[in-house]
Amino acid sequence: MQIDLHFTAGRIVVPPAAWPSREIGACLEFQGIVREGEGGAAVAGLFYEAYEPMARRLLERHLREMGARHPCTAVLFIHRLGFVPVGEASLFLRVLSAHRGEALALLAAAVDRLKQDVPIWKRSTPPAGL
Amino acid sequence: MQIDLHFTAGRIVVPPAAWPSREIGACLEFQGIVREGEGGAAVAGLFYEAYEPMARRLLERHLREMGARHPCTAVLFIHRLGFVPVGEASLFLRVLSAHRGEALALLAAAVDRLKQDVPIWKRSTPPAGL
Repeated sequence: MQIDLHFTAGRIVVPPAAWPSREIGACLEFQGIVREGEGGAAVAGLFYEAYEPMARRLLERHLREMGARHPCTAVLFIHRLGFVPVGEASLFLRVLSAHRGEALALLAAAVDRLKQDVPIWKRSTPPAGL
Repeated sequence: MQIDLHFTAGRIVVPPAAWPSREIGACLEFQGIVREGEGGAAVAGLFYEAYEPMARRLLERHLREMGARHPCTAVLFIHRLGFVPVGEASLFLRVLSAHRGEALALLAAAVDRLKQDVPIWKRSTPPAGL
């Protein structure tokens, strides 16, 4: 399984999708977007920080484990760091596979795991004027 | 839940994603792509036909039922009809929701259901020369 991991300080720019083989049957893409009501109170956005070397190592390890259970062809992972305003994506994931079941399972497991034990932290920033 | 259903004879053109509110936290997109090995033997593509009025009615009903179980904000459904060559999408689905769990559940259920009892049929076309 091909794994591409990226961290970016700017707005996430999604690269055009292309299939590495004629046996790709499913392309699943997820964007996690900052919500105004995040954490209970209105926020202007969230501020993300990561310990990048460890985050990369853990993500790669988790994705390899998940890929063994849910065989997929490729995973593209992009996480934005720094301030992300409400309405913009902090996370983008693309999974390519022969069949949709594996892509859905891998994507769901990857986002769950990301929130559990990968060193990426977020804190909320209140709207201006508060 | 906003539901948009489209059938198109040409290549699927995905409209840019936009969020209807500041409470959208998940944008999930799925493309179902025609594989070369579809149906066991190499094909040049698949040919799709639909009984459109009934397909629309059933899809709308199924999506409303699923939306009651997995509350989402909006669903965009695009199905291509006619010949779809290997490597191109026959189906595009976009689901917007506050949280990813609902979007994943709705999308998985919608594609399963689509294959079960919506009047959209496919037949394979062998590669040229066979």
